[in-house]
Amino acid sequence: MATQRLPEQQLKIGVAGLGLIGGSLALALRRAGHKVTGCNRSRAAAEYALVNGVIDEEGDVTRCDATFVALPPAATVDFICSRDWGDTVVADICGVKGYVEERVRALRPDIKFVGTHPMAGKEVSGVQNACADLFDNASMVLTRNIYTDERAYGLIKRLVKDMGFKRLVECSAQVHDKKIAYTSQLAHVVSNCYVKDGEIEGCLGFTGGSFQDMTRIAGVDEELWAELYLINGQNLIKNIDNLVARLSEVSSALSAGDKAALVSLLKAGREQFAAGKNNSFQGRDITTTLLK
Amino acid sequence: MATQRLPEQQLKIGVAGLGLIGGSLALALRRAGHKVTGCNRSRAAAEYALVNGVIDEEGDVTRCDATFVALPPAATVDFICSRDWGDTVVADICGVKGYVEERVRALRPDIKFVGTHPMAGKEVSGVQNACADLFDNASMVLTRNIYTDERAYGLIKRLVKDMGFKRLVECSAQVHDKKIAYTSQLAHVVSNCYVKDGEIEGCLGFTGGSFQDMTRIAGVDEELWAELYLINGQNLIKNIDNLVARLSEVSSALSAGDKAALVSLLKAGREQFAAGKNNSFQGRDITTTLLK
Repeated sequence: MATQRLPEQQLKIGVAGLGLIGGSLALALRRAGHKVTGCNRSRAAAEYALVNGVIDEEGDVTRCDATFVALPPAATVDFICSRDWGDTVVADICGVKGYVEERVRALRPDIKFVGTHPMAGKEVSGVQNACADLFDNASMVLTRNIYTDERAYGLIKRLVKDMGFKRLVECSAQVHDKKIAYTSQLAHVVSNCYVKDGEIEGCLGFTGGSFQDMTRIAGVDEELWAELYLINGQNLIKNIDNLVARLSEVSSALSAGDKAALVSLLKAGREQFAAGKNNSFQGRDITTTLLK
Repeated sequence: MATQRLPEQQLKIGVAGLGLIGGSLALALRRAGHKVTGCNRSRAAAEYALVNGVIDEEGDVTRCDATFVALPPAATVDFICSRDWGDTVVADICGVKGYVEERVRALRPDIKFVGTHPMAGKEVSGVQNACADLFDNASMVLTRNIYTDERAYGLIKRLVKDMGFKRLVECSAQVHDKKIAYTSQLAHVVSNCYVKDGEIEGCLGFTGGSFQDMTRIAGVDEELWAELYLINGQNLIKNIDNLVARLSEVSSALSAGDKAALVSLLKAGREQFAAGKNNSFQGRDITTTLLK
């Protein structure tokens, strides 16, 4: 169970969907001293969460100061748009933000909605893998638009700080979706494709850190990720096709036995990576704030 | 400086080339109680190694019980084939094994040569990054052929154990080169290509563990790796082209908005990875021995 400390003001926070992320949000919020009400469709996860102190209580999450809906995108939209939330601030945690934001806005403009995306995860799922410190060195992305309720946004911002995130990132849902297609979705696609090679048989003993890093996320849940990829297809296709083009350049240089071309391709990658690191990967239309 | 313990029998071991791998081999051998003579073309690395206890002494490495030549492939062949080694057992540590083995055999059949490839590294280079425990959880691959001198091979095998490797892998140079193209070289190519995308600008705050894992080795030295890739081009091209084909399948399923196809592609990857893990990635024509 998470160690609790007293917050400036204890809030009642709901978490709908007690998986790895929902469970970890609940634990981080409890660690900060807030009271967490949880709910989950399957009884097993809810009971586990209650027995193991992931949540304070099971119950109605539509009458809280704020509620995080930690479900896949389509289920998130369904869950949010089919309920009366009163004054409860509602946040989603989906890896695609434009899709959720647009639908909630179109179907239920009355809801005080804020889009969030905690930039942390594990290659395993489920509430039993949740932990209070999952976000301690991570960024939280908050997305906003011209309709965003300022009080609601301020409340979620405060909770981001309470939960122990290292960095707050603020941008539009569109900017988020472009960046995330590249930094996260492309990585998951590559990892999954990487393991589909006959040479994987018998490669024990030939696998250093590079192979382990490259394949760590090869086996994530295909239903969830197919949904994320399809929703963000336009951005992701661009990133995949670009990577395919870059890989083909290397393959061609190798086929031609052209060392100068090969060195130049590799050098360009090393330099682009170094340049990105040197400017801290700072970008336009994105505000980043170090929280600790 | 490495803590020394007494070996059954202290040997005099040479290390030519005091970079990350050469330096770490020296430290691991000294930790095991052997006496290490080092040499390096540039004075700075040799002096650093001497002052910091990476080696016992600078000097002639051609009159040792065994000498590890820790240089890039072409330089390794030059270094080995241009010297009189007497009874010294000579081992290389290159990431490509067929190339070195064939050339040494063709040019200098008199040398007691054993091919080795320590399966560990870092994304940084140089003797200043060497450490005695670099190989503690790693595999060592030894390659052999019909000409291999059994006594020489046995000596290197014993040193592998002394250096603290976790696993000994024995196979032909040809099997090694196929496996390494897939597990290591392909990973380095992918990482380098991954960072060549306009979206890398401004991606701070969107980079979780997946992005970090995927790009960790993007910036390795292009001269060394171009040499390794070209020597092993035939195998590596096959792996790159296969990955490109797998990525293109995902891109096509996304373009078609075909969720069933996408789920099926991702599922195949997850299952192939799980199957590989379940059989411990064991393969034919490869002997693996757990050393600790």
